Amino acid sequence: MDRVTTFNCGDTESTIPLINGELSGQEKEQAELRNEHFLSLFNQVTLPFYWARFEPQRGHPNTQRILNVARWYKEQDCIIKGHPLCWHTLTADWLLEMSNQEILKAQLERIRRDMTAFRDVVDQWDVVNEAVIMPVFDKYDNGITRICKEVGRIELIRHMFETTRETAPNAFLVLNDFDVSSAYDILVEGCLAAGIKIDGIGIQSHMHQGYWGQEKTLSVLEHFERFNLPIYFTETTIISGHLMPPEIVDLNDYQVADWPTTPEGEERQAQEVVTHYKTLFSHPYVEGITWWDLSDGGWLNAPAGLLRQDHSRKPAYNELLKLVKGEWWLPPTKFITDTNGQFTFIGFLGEYEVSISNQKTI
Amino acid sequence: MDRVTTFNCGDTESTIPLINGELSGQEKEQAELRNEHFLSLFNQVTLPFYWARFEPQRGHPNTQRILNVARWYKEQDCIIKGHPLCWHTLTADWLLEMSNQEILKAQLERIRRDMTAFRDVVDQWDVVNEAVIMPVFDKYDNGITRICKEVGRIELIRHMFETTRETAPNAFLVLNDFDVSSAYDILVEGCLAAGIKIDGIGIQSHMHQGYWGQEKTLSVLEHFERFNLPIYFTETTIISGHLMPPEIVDLNDYQVADWPTTPEGEERQAQEVVTHYKTLFSHPYVEGITWWDLSDGGWLNAPAGLLRQDHSRKPAYNELLKLVKGEWWLPPTKFITDTNGQFTFIGFLGEYEVSISNQKTI
Repeated sequence: MDRVTTFNCGDTESTIPLINGELSGQEKEQAELRNEHFLSLFNQVTLPFYWARFEPQRGHPNTQRILNVARWYKEQDCIIKGHPLCWHTLTADWLLEMSNQEILKAQLERIRRDMTAFRDVVDQWDVVNEAVIMPVFDKYDNGITRICKEVGRIELIRHMFETTRETAPNAFLVLNDFDVSSAYDILVEGCLAAGIKIDGIGIQSHMHQGYWGQEKTLSVLEHFERFNLPIYFTETTIISGHLMPPEIVDLNDYQVADWPTTPEGEERQAQEVVTHYKTLFSHPYVEGITWWDLSDGGWLNAPAGLLRQDHSRKPAYNELLKLVKGEWWLPPTKFITDTNGQFTFIGFLGEYEVSISNQKTI
Repeated sequence: MDRVTTFNCGDTESTIPLINGELSGQEKEQAELRNEHFLSLFNQVTLPFYWARFEPQRGHPNTQRILNVARWYKEQDCIIKGHPLCWHTLTADWLLEMSNQEILKAQLERIRRDMTAFRDVVDQWDVVNEAVIMPVFDKYDNGITRICKEVGRIELIRHMFETTRETAPNAFLVLNDFDVSSAYDILVEGCLAAGIKIDGIGIQSHMHQGYWGQEKTLSVLEHFERFNLPIYFTETTIISGHLMPPEIVDLNDYQVADWPTTPEGEERQAQEVVTHYKTLFSHPYVEGITWWDLSDGGWLNAPAGLLRQDHSRKPAYNELLKLVKGEWWLPPTKFITDTNGQFTFIGFLGEYEVSISNQKTI
């Protein structure tokens, strides 16, 4: 895969049942509406590889269903991302019955198997997710925390990255974390100093407790730009309802039955989304932003969508569409060549498609 | 130097003017009293190498005065520690006029010079102090933050450790930090993965806002024990007055004219000191504890001493003396050998001196 130099936007929901032909009636219509909105705005899709769901029963992975979706989006010219290959949360329960050595072996075999199956379709992987907290995660026992505690974060990352790269040498491999303290940039520094090849740095930004603001965003970026690596904002959330109280440390601890989107919240969200995307777009190392929930009611039941629960567009969606397709993308434009058969145009760094008469060149 | 396997206690104040013969009258008597208390309890001394004070004017280092003190304590059978060789706080002001390359060169030259002068006297060095915050320290501009920002924490640590070791191959080299979050153990992991040889891990524990308690202490230790390296509690403070308010982040921000020791505070301190020392002593990797201020009124003007400002003993001093010299050290004891000329005894892991008739063997 060539390095992606366009500015990508993504979404985590995969419309899996729709594309697998499992829906009908109103449910299907709703999913189609949602997917239309998705494709109008985004050109990258993040597909779920959470081990607990991908292979709930050992030896019976969910490969075909996800592969169908990946191929379908590939045909729509989307960049395909897999998330995640190694994570302590939502990892397979059946690891708990194994020794640490067996867990590590099973994790690496999982990577080899899935890398082989998805090699020609998935372009980019979140290989290790949330390694900073991984060995000290204490909410519940799980196989990945156990092995990370034993081998250490850097050795775990080395195992996962090396195995992924061996099996899929052309894939773009990302280390992803929600921790944006010094711990994470020290971890990246440690991995690089230990000779581990990381292609991109993934930064989560779930802002359920309020928009970071430009200053914090730039300060976070400053800690990572010294690595001269592409930076991806892999999980972006800005909500359009009341904010989660600041004293909550693990966002998963905030469980509410109802978390409505509000008109004022939607206006605030629209402004913050535009500022946030412009801030990131202007940074030389940021090469992608993934919006986490397309429609409300996803993770934490939060009003975190660009669409409401009925998939109607919020102001944030409309503003983002104007920004991405109106300002950043060059709309189809006719140019006339000069006497030397050349023409020039000004556009943002990225990939452009040029058609000459009936001949098409990229 | 052989690895120190005894349990050391230290103190940061160095009685520099006393040993250099600069005191007289009551001042001298007070300093002698203080030093007697010091030597009755401690067997390790930490000497100050803060660059701003050690070499306030470039090219005029304070070598001789500190060397006199180091030699004097060495004669009292103390282990000598130097603190610190590279730190952004209290570094030389005159670095600010240099380019980054010149700053790095000056820092390494400083290490070579001081390592050479103190090679035969100082056993252990805090080579790099507070690297976690070093490149993002923003209270004021300084030369060390500048170079750390440019080369990165791990490369800075590599430069300093390798230069120190080249010049003083037998010294014991410690990485020291007040940050006990994951950031620090990830940094240690990164340094080791990058092939940097660190002899000991230094952990500061200035508990002006309250004693950590056994649970936090053991949890901090748990994050470092996987490296199989000696751990030093290099800067221990438990106070005997009112606690610093919890909202203070940088302890240096709490400036008070008067911070008295109180009878209740002294009782609390004594209990906490005993619990803390016992907790650390029982841990297989902890090989040293340094008490930071022997007498009240030192750093931050805090009641952080084991002695009051008049150098009278607080309960904490007396309890610690009972613990260290009464329980942990074996007092001079006569043994009679068996028919094979052997004898056995039970004692804590450490160094013991054995005298046979008039022959002395260690």
